[in-house]
Amino acid sequence: MTLEGRFDGDVVRVAGDARQRFHDARGYGYPLEGNEIALAPVEAAHLLYRGDIAVVDTRSADSRTLAFRDFLAGDHGPDFGVQFLVYADLRSRGFYLSPAREPWLESPPDAAFAVFPRGSGPSDGEIEYALQVVGERTDLSATDLQAGALAVVDEESEITYFEVSSPDISGDSASSLPTGIDADLLEDRVVVWNPPETLYERTFYGQPLEGREYDRPTLQCSLLEAAHLSRNGALELDPERVLERGRTVEGDRFDRRLAVYTALRAAGVVPKTGYKFGADFRTYASVESVDELGHSELLIRVHPADHVFEPRDIALDVRLAHGVRKTMVFALVDSTGQAGGTINWLALTRLTP
Amino acid sequence: MTLEGRFDGDVVRVAGDARQRFHDARGYGYPLEGNEIALAPVEAAHLLYRGDIAVVDTRSADSRTLAFRDFLAGDHGPDFGVQFLVYADLRSRGFYLSPAREPWLESPPDAAFAVFPRGSGPSDGEIEYALQVVGERTDLSATDLQAGALAVVDEESEITYFEVSSPDISGDSASSLPTGIDADLLEDRVVVWNPPETLYERTFYGQPLEGREYDRPTLQCSLLEAAHLSRNGALELDPERVLERGRTVEGDRFDRRLAVYTALRAAGVVPKTGYKFGADFRTYASVESVDELGHSELLIRVHPADHVFEPRDIALDVRLAHGVRKTMVFALVDSTGQAGGTINWLALTRLTP
Repeated sequence: MTLEGRFDGDVVRVAGDARQRFHDARGYGYPLEGNEIALAPVEAAHLLYRGDIAVVDTRSADSRTLAFRDFLAGDHGPDFGVQFLVYADLRSRGFYLSPAREPWLESPPDAAFAVFPRGSGPSDGEIEYALQVVGERTDLSATDLQAGALAVVDEESEITYFEVSSPDISGDSASSLPTGIDADLLEDRVVVWNPPETLYERTFYGQPLEGREYDRPTLQCSLLEAAHLSRNGALELDPERVLERGRTVEGDRFDRRLAVYTALRAAGVVPKTGYKFGADFRTYASVESVDELGHSELLIRVHPADHVFEPRDIALDVRLAHGVRKTMVFALVDSTGQAGGTINWLALTRLTP
Repeated sequence: MTLEGRFDGDVVRVAGDARQRFHDARGYGYPLEGNEIALAPVEAAHLLYRGDIAVVDTRSADSRTLAFRDFLAGDHGPDFGVQFLVYADLRSRGFYLSPAREPWLESPPDAAFAVFPRGSGPSDGEIEYALQVVGERTDLSATDLQAGALAVVDEESEITYFEVSSPDISGDSASSLPTGIDADLLEDRVVVWNPPETLYERTFYGQPLEGREYDRPTLQCSLLEAAHLSRNGALELDPERVLERGRTVEGDRFDRRLAVYTALRAAGVVPKTGYKFGADFRTYASVESVDELGHSELLIRVHPADHVFEPRDIALDVRLAHGVRKTMVFALVDSTGQAGGTINWLALTRLTP
């Protein structure tokens, strides 16, 4: 028997044996008095779509397709369209999920849906993912991006899932530095003359002039490397001059990148430019010698703490990182402090539900 | 015998047997009277670096290293630093190259350097690449990006080379359309009800609702697809309403993307969203059936004709495209026209000299 639902505020109530059929057996809605349940619009739309219920208060309830069509065209809140697509997709993959709201859940996470572990329902008390849902064109503030999962629905209604987590930023790379090495500040880089070989070979600062062979004791350093080295007394160069030059060529971004560079070096991680991957840094957690350099593990993009992401840019970064077997990390720098600002690290990886 | 050079305006003149040693045998400079030659600063810097000449008019000419160091720190124009790095890199790879200026060349291309085919020099009259050179932080106007090659020097002095060319935009995909199919315009997508199976299966419009299986005759189309379909009478939907909605959610970008979408379809190429690759479109040149869909060939990013690139974004796009075995194409739309604007297509690929 096909049940009927009726709107009651922003939920759809279904009576009959709805509790047993939809809630207890398949995790839809929350129980009311007796056998009645209340469904969120997205849940009602899904049951409609599957032909399990027929909503009565639509213009044309004479066919199931029309009922669903009318329901879809109604106004159920700004993100209803993309939320329905994600709900239906995860259901079709065998997951149970609930709106992340009371009374569906006792302590709902700050997200669109709570997704339960495969084979579990809401009553098992365990949540696999707090899932945020956005459309491809929705701006996503960095402050809203939190540990959990993110579903992005593209313009053609395909869905990409991401896991958002805290990365491990630590390493045991060599860190001892020389002192007072001769260096020249050029337009947007620094030349280091006759440094000890270890500066490049062991601590991986700079780039030997002309190709990879270390045949002449001349290194070119980036302004970031030079700022860090001069602050630590390794170069005969005024750190303030380097900092000023960095701000001239990059603006505020230089301070944010230097904060991240400094934090990485302090954690025993070696940052080198991520330019070839379109990122700020690629990082090596354990550099003992450049000759035995392993694969870099992370790609890091630096943003101000209040940065607003476009989902498309996230897709591009995470896809590229995945393709080169690295993890994409966003370093969000609270720019109220200068080079010592607070950094929030977020790792994003693709998730295949 | 080590020769000495002397500045004469913006060239360095070298006498002695310079013509034979440097110009005739190794392609440096251009010949003056007798055996004298004139060198561009970048050529002089390279011969200095190699110890082949010693420049006299530096502060401290008592050691070769110092002479080179002083030369490098001098003012030789805004891009001297990055141009020197590229010049030295290509020389170390066995290429001859000249400044793209008279009188080094008779009809110099509009670029920094003319690179000759490996094993050839300037006198052989053939140019392999007209090479533009920019630093990672240099803005690059789309109007300056032309067929040839591009070298980008990153902040750590590593160099990436790109080839810029005209892509082949043509295909033979199925194109016949139905007429007057029922459709609803939702918030930022269109639902197409009961279309003929060929609309998705053969011409690859839309995305079946809920997963890939085509078990229900309901398609979701992007606003671009719907604009194109409604303009061609395939949907019962006012094309102007779709266009308006597109502009509401995307602004001017919608018109540019529609111009590119339309041009691709007209060329027999099927564009689908490139969202997962951070691009506007991925394209298929020969779609006969979605069941036998091959690999998409191009990733297309749409920009206004006066767009200014950051080299880092180019690196990211080209790297990603390369990683997924597609070719990165920029579609530059002259926005003086609307949906029918002129499109300039540029393909960028990595080049390993």
